[in-house]
Amino acid sequence: MLINSIFGPKFQNYQIGNIVKLANKTELSLDCGKKIANFNLAYQTYGKLNKDKSNAILICHAFTGDQYVASQNPITGKRGWWEEVVGRSKAIDTEKYFVICSNVIGGCMGSFGPKDINPENGEIYGANFPIITISDMVKAQKLLIESFGIEKLFSVIGGSMGGFQVIEWAASYPQMVKSAIPLATSFRHNVENIAFNEIGRKAIMADSDWKSGNYLTKKTFPQKGLAVARMAAHITYMSKASLQKKFGRNLQEKRELSYQFDIDFQIESYLDHQGNSFISRFDPNSYLFMSKAMDYFDLEADKDKDLTEIFANSNIKFCLISFSDDWLFPPSELQILSQKLNIAGLEVSYVNIESSHGHDSFLVKNELMEDVIMGFLDNT
Amino acid sequence: MLINSIFGPKFQNYQIGNIVKLANKTELSLDCGKKIANFNLAYQTYGKLNKDKSNAILICHAFTGDQYVASQNPITGKRGWWEEVVGRSKAIDTEKYFVICSNVIGGCMGSFGPKDINPENGEIYGANFPIITISDMVKAQKLLIESFGIEKLFSVIGGSMGGFQVIEWAASYPQMVKSAIPLATSFRHNVENIAFNEIGRKAIMADSDWKSGNYLTKKTFPQKGLAVARMAAHITYMSKASLQKKFGRNLQEKRELSYQFDIDFQIESYLDHQGNSFISRFDPNSYLFMSKAMDYFDLEADKDKDLTEIFANSNIKFCLISFSDDWLFPPSELQILSQKLNIAGLEVSYVNIESSHGHDSFLVKNELMEDVIMGFLDNT
Repeated sequence: MLINSIFGPKFQNYQIGNIVKLANKTELSLDCGKKIANFNLAYQTYGKLNKDKSNAILICHAFTGDQYVASQNPITGKRGWWEEVVGRSKAIDTEKYFVICSNVIGGCMGSFGPKDINPENGEIYGANFPIITISDMVKAQKLLIESFGIEKLFSVIGGSMGGFQVIEWAASYPQMVKSAIPLATSFRHNVENIAFNEIGRKAIMADSDWKSGNYLTKKTFPQKGLAVARMAAHITYMSKASLQKKFGRNLQEKRELSYQFDIDFQIESYLDHQGNSFISRFDPNSYLFMSKAMDYFDLEADKDKDLTEIFANSNIKFCLISFSDDWLFPPSELQILSQKLNIAGLEVSYVNIESSHGHDSFLVKNELMEDVIMGFLDNT
Repeated sequence: MLINSIFGPKFQNYQIGNIVKLANKTELSLDCGKKIANFNLAYQTYGKLNKDKSNAILICHAFTGDQYVASQNPITGKRGWWEEVVGRSKAIDTEKYFVICSNVIGGCMGSFGPKDINPENGEIYGANFPIITISDMVKAQKLLIESFGIEKLFSVIGGSMGGFQVIEWAASYPQMVKSAIPLATSFRHNVENIAFNEIGRKAIMADSDWKSGNYLTKKTFPQKGLAVARMAAHITYMSKASLQKKFGRNLQEKRELSYQFDIDFQIESYLDHQGNSFISRFDPNSYLFMSKAMDYFDLEADKDKDLTEIFANSNIKFCLISFSDDWLFPPSELQILSQKLNIAGLEVSYVNIESSHGHDSFLVKNELMEDVIMGFLDNT
């Protein structure tokens, strides 16, 4: 299916893989109170679903991720974002498992999102898209899983915002989840993360090309604001040590300071690159809505119950993986979840991995992480 | 003296205290190669200079600070930024000491800065202001100190960017400095700090009202960009623990999530307030130039010498003060300086203070900090 991409200053058509229409019989109720029907969900699958439909693994992507977990992204041309982990003879072995990954609702890679047309008035949603939550994303994924006739997922796996979805799946649909592997994540978004998201949102909205969210209709694109948002977020994805090791105070392709507002330091060039490459693949309004969804996530508040209560009657097997220098979701977050799940009497593995790539560690080749995932799945 | 303020959307005149013309006999050479003459330096003094001019203390202000260290700021109407520490019977006792604090060059509180007229063409400097360095700021301060006939400062004291100036003073003019108290600072700006400054600069420059630095001439003001820059910087001034304690996930004046892009969380409201109040007191171009000055600071690279070599022939008495949860300048930075100064054989006190206000700790009432400063000055 062709989708009209609105990424960056270039407007192009891209071939997106599988897109399914969901909620075409009954409406799906969003947490904000609005109802949606007949909406698109874009997804990729890898491997084959077995006869008794017991080998399906759902992978949930992170904030700026997508469904191209183990195959080339048609927009960036880059390889799948978790090809080190998912594939033939990889930790998540597509010879054994049927792997599904769908673009979240609110996203911009083919699933129902702010660049869609609002059927009520025929206009692009833009800033009038409904506020969605992690729970809404999971409700949409559940419809997708049911459309395959799958009654129970062998495992639900994901890092960062993907981990929010994993924990939400386990909490809301325990009967559909055999095991769960949340990585580099938490059961709630913390104040510092909300603060950084707010800066990103303000940077996008401060760009006069945002046009109150109507940049598509007005044929503009808030690329500068989106780039600033990405730069600010990107710092939080790295650790102090990795920034120091990778860049330090090294100058960019020169020997002396420029005494101008040029780029002097490698870190400036790197952040500029991160900002500029992001604008060609991400929708600014999706950035706003998905960051808000993350900010809203607080499982205990949502369920009005303590974690132990939430999981009291569950028999999901958990494997929690944190990374030592993750600044966005420090290991203490999953340690708390581990304690509460243990109190609830669940089978819980908790692994903290020494790392040097900060929050991004789960996206970087890491044999220990792969061995832990493989071992856990083998014994599920 | 009246200065035409350009802060925020309101253009007003403010009464600024003392302003002196410096370099009116010879030119001052900036590190960028340009020379300046006959430039303004705005300053405040507290207490009285004694007969032999031996009781002068220079206080150097931080990035967004100013010369109003112990008296009301005429623009904000707020009390001096260090009134807890400087005043009668305070740690820096104005009954004993003659305290001087000047607005740095590049600043926007009356000293030579980007909103001045360039004598070469009669136009406002804007983005054509020369790139200045910490060393340039100190050279200008030195002229001010000499204009008082002071040959040796009893002490030079300052936190954060003020600490950069303290260390620069001690390294470049050791014969003029009896003692030095750098707080919450380092002998170099690190990669993470450069990264945050770059985001701030990009946010300002991304604002279409920045007009390539010519907003004064064009009668616009990049308030949104400046607010985003301030918000991003403000997060780095606080610690994770203080953000958590002060705000956590508390909602702002409501009981439930809004499911809109309104402010939901207290932290959002707080950051918005920080951004919005900042634009009424700070010049966006000054923000650019001063952040660049900080980024350039690396004493060892500037002097092309190791710290121990730099201070080898000095007999300045140092008191280094770091704060346990300072995220911008972690205690390790001043610990390194302490080691090197000890190797150089200097008298060095190093105190790390347990704190919960992050980098801002030196600006917050702290009796231990005050006692340490007082004790050190008494024994200088």
